[in-house]
Amino acid sequence: MSHGRECAPPWRVAEWFNTPEPLTLAQLRGRVVMVCAFQMLCPGCVSEGLPQAQRVAHLFRREDVEVVGLHTVFEHHDAMRPVALRAFLHEYRITFPVGVDEADGVGLPRTMRAYRMEGTPTTLLIDRQGYLRRQVLGHLPDLRLGAEIMALMSEAAAPPDAAGSPDIRMPGGCA
Amino acid sequence: MSHGRECAPPWRVAEWFNTPEPLTLAQLRGRVVMVCAFQMLCPGCVSEGLPQAQRVAHLFRREDVEVVGLHTVFEHHDAMRPVALRAFLHEYRITFPVGVDEADGVGLPRTMRAYRMEGTPTTLLIDRQGYLRRQVLGHLPDLRLGAEIMALMSEAAAPPDAAGSPDIRMPGGCA
Amino acid sequence: MSHGRECAPPWRVAEWFNTPEPLTLAQLRGRVVMVCAFQMLCPGCVSEGLPQAQRVAHLFRREDVEVVGLHTVFEHHDAMRPVALRAFLHEYRITFPVGVDEADGVGLPRTMRAYRMEGTPTTLLIDRQGYLRRQVLGHLPDLRLGAEIMALMSEAAAPPDAAGSPDIRMPGGCA
Amino acid sequence: MSHGRECAPPWRVAEWFNTPEPLTLAQLRGRVVMVCAFQMLCPGCVSEGLPQAQRVAHLFRREDVEVVGLHTVFEHHDAMRPVALRAFLHEYRITFPVGVDEADGVGLPRTMRAYRMEGTPTTLLIDRQGYLRRQVLGHLPDLRLGAEIMALMSEAAAPPDAAGSPDIRMPGGCA
Repeated sequence: MSHGRECAPPWRVAEWFNTPEPLTLAQLRGRVVMVCAFQMLCPGCVSEGLPQAQRVAHLFRREDVEVVGLHTVFEHHDAMRPVALRAFLHEYRITFPVGVDEADGVGLPRTMRAYRMEGTPTTLLIDRQGYLRRQVLGHLPDLRLGAEIMALMSEAAAPPDAAGSPDIRMPGGCA
Repeated sequence: MSHGRECAPPWRVAEWFNTPEPLTLAQLRGRVVMVCAFQMLCPGCVSEGLPQAQRVAHLFRREDVEVVGLHTVFEHHDAMRPVALRAFLHEYRITFPVGVDEADGVGLPRTMRAYRMEGTPTTLLIDRQGYLRRQVLGHLPDLRLGAEIMALMSEAAAPPDAAGSPDIRMPGGCA
Repeated sequence: MSHGRECAPPWRVAEWFNTPEPLTLAQLRGRVVMVCAFQMLCPGCVSEGLPQAQRVAHLFRREDVEVVGLHTVFEHHDAMRPVALRAFLHEYRITFPVGVDEADGVGLPRTMRAYRMEGTPTTLLIDRQGYLRRQVLGHLPDLRLGAEIMALMSEAAAPPDAAGSPDIRMPGGCA
Repeated sequence: MSHGRECAPPWRVAEWFNTPEPLTLAQLRGRVVMVCAFQMLCPGCVSEGLPQAQRVAHLFRREDVEVVGLHTVFEHHDAMRPVALRAFLHEYRITFPVGVDEADGVGLPRTMRAYRMEGTPTTLLIDRQGYLRRQVLGHLPDLRLGAEIMALMSEAAAPPDAAGSPDIRMPGGCA
């Protein structure tokens, strides 16, 4: 797992599904967050990324691990509008929260660009302090993903390397 | 395989993809035809029906077996318009001809109703004379499908039970 | 499919399982025969070849297609004796007839050598006249196998190219 | 995961493969241990249990997680003797240590009985102090297994509930 300590950029979401309220990373501080960035017409997202995200959502308790889908449309915009996404989520029985990444014309949507994602699906793991600890184009094998999520769950709420360090100015994690 | 001798109803198609000219059953007389009726947001179509149709299209020569997709939208009409279908066919690399079944308001589209299909995917096999010889909701195992297609290919161009029968008024098959 | 017209060499079998009487190719004249040559400790045989043979045995009627296993042990002889094979067939619920290819010291067993097989699994298709029509190291995709079996089933009992030919001395097929 | 604190019974092994020295649980104290109890002719062991054990052995470093196979033969004894097991391990490319559970006539072998296993495959997880923390007939989904292994890796070397407790007589774990 990457040992970087980059704060996960905030999400810029135009519309949410499967949640009564918009979600923000700040609200989710204290939980491990798995993000599946996908497009509804991307074959690898449909066959691999989203089913894995569903398995994670079913295995872990939501107070431990929040699974979030991010619809990062960067092609075929006309075919993947929110009305189509709504039908897709219904047909594929996806029940975790899904946000629509804010479009920026026909280029990469804003959150996708902030994370410098290279395609879909992209899998993100964000720790309990809001640091982006893992980003991978595609998906991890289930065995490894389970281990990485649990490693993050096992960390204390304070950053593991912050104890006693005067250099860490944000002991509670990312702003 | 059903031993019925019902002529396959004509297709009513609003728009074709992957073919320079509209296709009709009459044109395909002399070939075995496999139809995969699907919806682009139907999980079983995406995971099973369409991949099988692609395998059939790759295995057999087109002068022997014509594979045709039929987009029979009966739900989520706004999400599965032709502009979305075009993107879907591109992303899933489907190269056989696909026709859009003519809508009839928000009910079953016209070809789907003519065949009394009960859902998607539906698999059809039509013989060289234009008779509908197999219709199944879902898909057949590959082994059986390969055998059934070859059985139809092995039949003479004239109906097998028509030889010398004064009762058969259309020895060349369906009108 | 190979268009060769080589008679399938007779089987040399030391012991049979799952059949009250030894089987010979001559007895099976008139049926299509699929042979799965395997070793019980060959991973590809266990994961692919034998499950496919079981699917064929379940799909077709035995009077049309006879499925036969041939235990062609050419390595680890001590580990794959008939007592072990018996347990293997029981555990993997293989119910079609299986013959033990006659050993020839520690080299290739006799039937395997007569067919010039190059490893396991090897899939054979023998037509209704006893001609070897297909031999492949590994296995065919199900769709193709189903089609090839049905093509052989569709042939007349007399060789297709023998009609009226004075050169064919055995109109009933192989001796 | 079971919260029991039962010490894992010692292994009774007649013969080891893939290790220059016999392994004991006492030696492995400090590591997480995954045991895959299997029989070489058990289909579920071959298709599921052993491939999963191989994935675990490949993913984790051996100083963190030791994967051990245990050949618990309770049926078809003649077919699964060590000479056959050796060929099996070679063909299936299993490289982690495998012990042959001590036979006790034709009944359950001794280690299998000590753990009260109900069949094969059985998956065990033993923590760094030697406590048996998970025992399941069959196998766990990869996602859950990865998480459970990492949870055990994240525990301190001393028992988590032993800190300051005068009742724990073996602070270093099982004898």
